[in-house]
Amino acid sequence: MWKTAIQKSSCMLYTPAKCIQRGLHSRKTTQLKEMINSPEMEFLMEAHNGLSAKIVEEAGFRGIWGSGLAISAQLGVRDCNEASWTQVTDILEFMADATTVPILLDADTGYGNFNNARRLVNKLEKIGVAGCCMEDKIFPKTNSLLDNRKQPLADMNEFAMKIRACKDSQKDPDFVIVARVEALIAGWGMDEALRRAEAYRKAGADAILIHSKKSDPSEIEGFMKAWNNQGPVVVVPTKYYKTPTSQLEQLGISTVIWANHNMRASITAMQEVSSNIFNQRSLAFIEPRVAPVKEVFRLQGEEELAEAERKYLPSANKKS
Amino acid sequence: MWKTAIQKSSCMLYTPAKCIQRGLHSRKTTQLKEMINSPEMEFLMEAHNGLSAKIVEEAGFRGIWGSGLAISAQLGVRDCNEASWTQVTDILEFMADATTVPILLDADTGYGNFNNARRLVNKLEKIGVAGCCMEDKIFPKTNSLLDNRKQPLADMNEFAMKIRACKDSQKDPDFVIVARVEALIAGWGMDEALRRAEAYRKAGADAILIHSKKSDPSEIEGFMKAWNNQGPVVVVPTKYYKTPTSQLEQLGISTVIWANHNMRASITAMQEVSSNIFNQRSLAFIEPRVAPVKEVFRLQGEEELAEAERKYLPSANKKS
Amino acid sequence: MWKTAIQKSSCMLYTPAKCIQRGLHSRKTTQLKEMINSPEMEFLMEAHNGLSAKIVEEAGFRGIWGSGLAISAQLGVRDCNEASWTQVTDILEFMADATTVPILLDADTGYGNFNNARRLVNKLEKIGVAGCCMEDKIFPKTNSLLDNRKQPLADMNEFAMKIRACKDSQKDPDFVIVARVEALIAGWGMDEALRRAEAYRKAGADAILIHSKKSDPSEIEGFMKAWNNQGPVVVVPTKYYKTPTSQLEQLGISTVIWANHNMRASITAMQEVSSNIFNQRSLAFIEPRVAPVKEVFRLQGEEELAEAERKYLPSANKKS
Amino acid sequence: MWKTAIQKSSCMLYTPAKCIQRGLHSRKTTQLKEMINSPEMEFLMEAHNGLSAKIVEEAGFRGIWGSGLAISAQLGVRDCNEASWTQVTDILEFMADATTVPILLDADTGYGNFNNARRLVNKLEKIGVAGCCMEDKIFPKTNSLLDNRKQPLADMNEFAMKIRACKDSQKDPDFVIVARVEALIAGWGMDEALRRAEAYRKAGADAILIHSKKSDPSEIEGFMKAWNNQGPVVVVPTKYYKTPTSQLEQLGISTVIWANHNMRASITAMQEVSSNIFNQRSLAFIEPRVAPVKEVFRLQGEEELAEAERKYLPSANKKS
Repeated sequence: MWKTAIQKSSCMLYTPAKCIQRGLHSRKTTQLKEMINSPEMEFLMEAHNGLSAKIVEEAGFRGIWGSGLAISAQLGVRDCNEASWTQVTDILEFMADATTVPILLDADTGYGNFNNARRLVNKLEKIGVAGCCMEDKIFPKTNSLLDNRKQPLADMNEFAMKIRACKDSQKDPDFVIVARVEALIAGWGMDEALRRAEAYRKAGADAILIHSKKSDPSEIEGFMKAWNNQGPVVVVPTKYYKTPTSQLEQLGISTVIWANHNMRASITAMQEVSSNIFNQRSLAFIEPRVAPVKEVFRLQGEEELAEAERKYLPSANKKS
Repeated sequence: MWKTAIQKSSCMLYTPAKCIQRGLHSRKTTQLKEMINSPEMEFLMEAHNGLSAKIVEEAGFRGIWGSGLAISAQLGVRDCNEASWTQVTDILEFMADATTVPILLDADTGYGNFNNARRLVNKLEKIGVAGCCMEDKIFPKTNSLLDNRKQPLADMNEFAMKIRACKDSQKDPDFVIVARVEALIAGWGMDEALRRAEAYRKAGADAILIHSKKSDPSEIEGFMKAWNNQGPVVVVPTKYYKTPTSQLEQLGISTVIWANHNMRASITAMQEVSSNIFNQRSLAFIEPRVAPVKEVFRLQGEEELAEAERKYLPSANKKS
Repeated sequence: MWKTAIQKSSCMLYTPAKCIQRGLHSRKTTQLKEMINSPEMEFLMEAHNGLSAKIVEEAGFRGIWGSGLAISAQLGVRDCNEASWTQVTDILEFMADATTVPILLDADTGYGNFNNARRLVNKLEKIGVAGCCMEDKIFPKTNSLLDNRKQPLADMNEFAMKIRACKDSQKDPDFVIVARVEALIAGWGMDEALRRAEAYRKAGADAILIHSKKSDPSEIEGFMKAWNNQGPVVVVPTKYYKTPTSQLEQLGISTVIWANHNMRASITAMQEVSSNIFNQRSLAFIEPRVAPVKEVFRLQGEEELAEAERKYLPSANKKS
Repeated sequence: MWKTAIQKSSCMLYTPAKCIQRGLHSRKTTQLKEMINSPEMEFLMEAHNGLSAKIVEEAGFRGIWGSGLAISAQLGVRDCNEASWTQVTDILEFMADATTVPILLDADTGYGNFNNARRLVNKLEKIGVAGCCMEDKIFPKTNSLLDNRKQPLADMNEFAMKIRACKDSQKDPDFVIVARVEALIAGWGMDEALRRAEAYRKAGADAILIHSKKSDPSEIEGFMKAWNNQGPVVVVPTKYYKTPTSQLEQLGISTVIWANHNMRASITAMQEVSSNIFNQRSLAFIEPRVAPVKEVFRLQGEEELAEAERKYLPSANKKS
């Protein structure tokens, strides 16, 4: 029983070496750290609640992107810290509970100064989130893709010390902290972007996320050339989506984030189904186009519960 | 300003009569109560978070069904009270904030005895939910559509008093409480269903939800005939979805709930998009098939914020 | 029943005039607004959870101060926005539910910019808090009484517009917003304090809280003389506690806040009782010095529940 | 840094053996398990929020009792599951964060059936609570000390399987589960109490809590004699508080819980201070009788933050 429990918990109680030695799965943090540092390019797919997280894992992805935009959108609020940071971590906890692959949280600015950020890290460790990405903007943040608003950036040194404070306060050495450089988005230019990336790397960031909202990958190319492989780089090709993945691979990108497509797919699907049912006042044509109720139950894990009830709630079976 | 505030709040501070007299919109509770009691058959469409709730309203629906199954599924847990009742109301609050049409919450058993149920009612009133539906089962509940498990029902008198306790503790006289009769689902037969419906109506229920998991509407027909129009009846044709809506209309049904189709549509959409992106390692083909990022921003209400920033945060504009 | 409900809810559904006309208690917001504007000096006493709030009301106070310092202290965190704003409002909701007198929340900076602040106001209205006080500092805040740290102040115009945004978004016209001027504390001098107080008053603040950490009331005197009765002024004599109350009265103070004394009294009491029980390994001598268990039950409202059980849960009585 | 982190986290990532080998403190779970099984009688002192938990630890206690009565009382609700289980665990998380000694949670019935209970265990493990105590009553529970209400007990076998389900789902082998036998309180007699204690022990309970509301220890004596040392026994002498501790020691009691005295002490203190300030309209006489503001800051850990600001927020120091 104890051995099974350990396995179920992705080896929470052992060091990585100890885990491998015992033939156990590595911790989620270790999995994410290995993805970030592996020679192959890896992919993280967006999820915004327990359901989409499970779907991402079942699709084959080895990691999940807990998107700030998608999470705020599903809540029905704006992507500028309208939801409190604990409302966000409450959702992350459901996502981590529903899955066995690591989650990297899009943690905006860390929701305040270094103290808020390091407290966030401790909370994420508790709920089984494997890492977080923080950006060098000011709280409350504004979504980077919103048009025509240049945003001030955080002071570089203050942000670097925020990263260091987070690294110093994580308890699991494999918890991943990605520093997101917004200098290109904010129009501060490539030199500033590189200067910041270097400062954040030195402060302990496990990887740099370089963000661009150009529709071509020219900024990313420029950055990668100048960066010269000093550490893992993460990208989010939401705007330069036409760029062939092989091209990103050749640039030496560590990890690609497909940042919001589950949420956007669900919007289209729900707008269609709501509109159709409203207009037709009937479900007749809808049933074959949506997941069967049985599939909902499967995703929720009804089988494990049925088994557990047979074991632990004998009276429930007598009634059937 | 004060007048606008009143209008925005759907007339929270006036009695219904006072609202009409002043040309204001009626409260959400009043809207729901009028739907339940209107001579035309009305429809409630499922939502499970702020985003889907807004989509339901934009599709044209005059009311929203806060589905217990869909909410638990989106969280990634099972529909047997695995989420706490405050985790559920936290979601409902986002849903109510994102919309202007009334929400009827699928409140399972009321999450305990009469005391838990009446406390729920007070919480729902605070967060702007217009009504709730409680079923005569035992806490923790099991989803009614799960195969082969007959569930014990609550004691009829105890459940009737739970309904009464809720009606007695609501502050807004138009808050709607629907009593859901599970006798047909649980195999206790039509007489028991009618006996219970009558008891709950007498206890103060604003409507009876009669649930059936047959694939044809025969049980509903039988019930409606015997019920003889004693009060509004609500149905959920998830299993008898082929039944023409006109047939339900002829039976005298008050309100039809399309109970879980947004969530099921989103599952199909997310499974497809996740699987396709995973296999193709590219977004290129996905972009035209999902809602644009701009549409996400629109649904989140970015326009109102941009306007408010111009008004209240002049420094933000100087930067742009 | 409907009439009783109205009374219980402190007249939530009527305008103040309508309430008085019908002989109903006024809304909590109205009560607080009247206190702030009354010619007599009024008092608010600190509470930090439902229990202390009820004790404050039972002691005779007509209003409660939801202290940021005391709430963070009871949680076991620091007074620099370590708890999220929704963790704070969760506590406020319990406090409002447990009492019938109005609560004024110490809302720090509003937990972000004007948008976070106005969203807070809407949340407070929902949970029955009658008003909030916001200070012109930067998020995350530091407690004003901490030694030797001068804190930067918020931009005056930006803070004034935050107050206006909040006033514009409140739904109940009697919800109270107090603007707290930190210029004296931060060492910016009297002129700056007066300039800011005037700006915030013009922006719509219902009252000005002028804060001082001197051990004598000289700053308050100076402010009141120069302010010349332009609007209600609130003070917090934590540091100048020796000042006779009559002296504050003569200065024309509207409202005095006893800001943290319940929490500080509870610390002393708990340190003593814990230490004594630890050392003596016995309860024998403790029982007469602490509230009886029966008193705990009384404060929790057991009597109402017992009555409700007799009415709504007849089976519970059969068992006894 | 990593080594320090490990120490701070009470050795979360190592097995007990590994911890000792490395000279690290043992995990909180291990500490609690060792207390329960140690030959000396041990003591747990009640706390109900982060502040009281820290006070308990500072008084010298090696463990904390997370009292259901005290937690509900501080919230201002009744001890019958009016607060949701996640509202309770939110408080426990603050308590665990504020302290380094283990907490045993009074978890009522586990807040539902075996499935709710085992989910609770997983949540408690995440937030750093070392164990929980569950009682064989029905959800929603009623406080055991309320007069004159005999409560039905849970089915013995069903409750035993609930204990087993919890033991099977804990990930840390040292997490402690105490089964609380309510048979004496409920008037079912000694034989039933012993039969149940034995069933729960066999199901895996780490200890039995035998509860009595007699004002003398006769029931406890009778139980201990018949139990004949089959496993650790925990008692709560709230009602038989005059019993000398040495007498409990001689009976072979493993652990004594001082169940609610911090909360009761704080009630008395707050009633006095509120009443005095209300009547005297002054703080002058109060200041020396309550903890100084500096002591509040110390309990909140301001020193660690000041140090961290010097390290991570250099700009903050420049200002001072």
